[in-house]
Amino acid sequence: MKRIDHVGIAVSDLDAALALWDTLLGQKPQLEAVAGQKVHTAMYPCGIELIAPAADDSPISRFLEKRGGGIHHVTIAVADIDAQLARLKEQGVALINEEAAMGAGGHRVAFLHPRAAGGVLVELKESTRE
Amino acid sequence: MKRIDHVGIAVSDLDAALALWDTLLGQKPQLEAVAGQKVHTAMYPCGIELIAPAADDSPISRFLEKRGGGIHHVTIAVADIDAQLARLKEQGVALINEEAAMGAGGHRVAFLHPRAAGGVLVELKESTRE
Repeated sequence: MKRIDHVGIAVSDLDAALALWDTLLGQKPQLEAVAGQKVHTAMYPCGIELIAPAADDSPISRFLEKRGGGIHHVTIAVADIDAQLARLKEQGVALINEEAAMGAGGHRVAFLHPRAAGGVLVELKESTRE
Repeated sequence: MKRIDHVGIAVSDLDAALALWDTLLGQKPQLEAVAGQKVHTAMYPCGIELIAPAADDSPISRFLEKRGGGIHHVTIAVADIDAQLARLKEQGVALINEEAAMGAGGHRVAFLHPRAAGGVLVELKESTRE
């Protein structure tokens, strides 16, 4: 577990959120459509990620209906995601993804179950760049 | 705005939260009592910070009563907090702290108003170490 890679924020209106966060951060994000998750994402260089639903049955739509806009997940950069998942499984930590999958930007990612972390959704991301 | 410095998570029972996050992260945190904010904090090397109330009238007590445990704030490391606050003020972004104050670890910090960021509480922190 190296450092916070990014914080994902669920938004219902991506254009309105972009206007707000562009001003707040003084930065422009990289936009991406993540088809597998049915979301549009906007990743700012500093590590704020906006996530908007691309379809009514997107997991983010359900989150927005239930809880409204706000922080959706925290992503922690790890050196070896397979080793971390094996360690967590062995320690009985509840996982959503027992194996790493391909996430935004082509990185290997896995979500822990929120009940493992007091209701916080934690994503692990193998950072291959450093 | 350089990167996510840490994510602050409000917890009511610090010992229970420490047991959970020590296992999850495979790390031990640095503990600190921040008298000015009436909180106990536990900062893990990877950037997860647990925050527990040290008194009933702590701001964190009110947060826990209203919203329960969960992510309280996101802290973004900035090179020059005075310049960022001046820029945000000029752009009409709502601030809780118009001037930087001394936070945990002796760093200069300031909070933006949650309504400036779609309900997310954002803290800026001048990182003098890099």
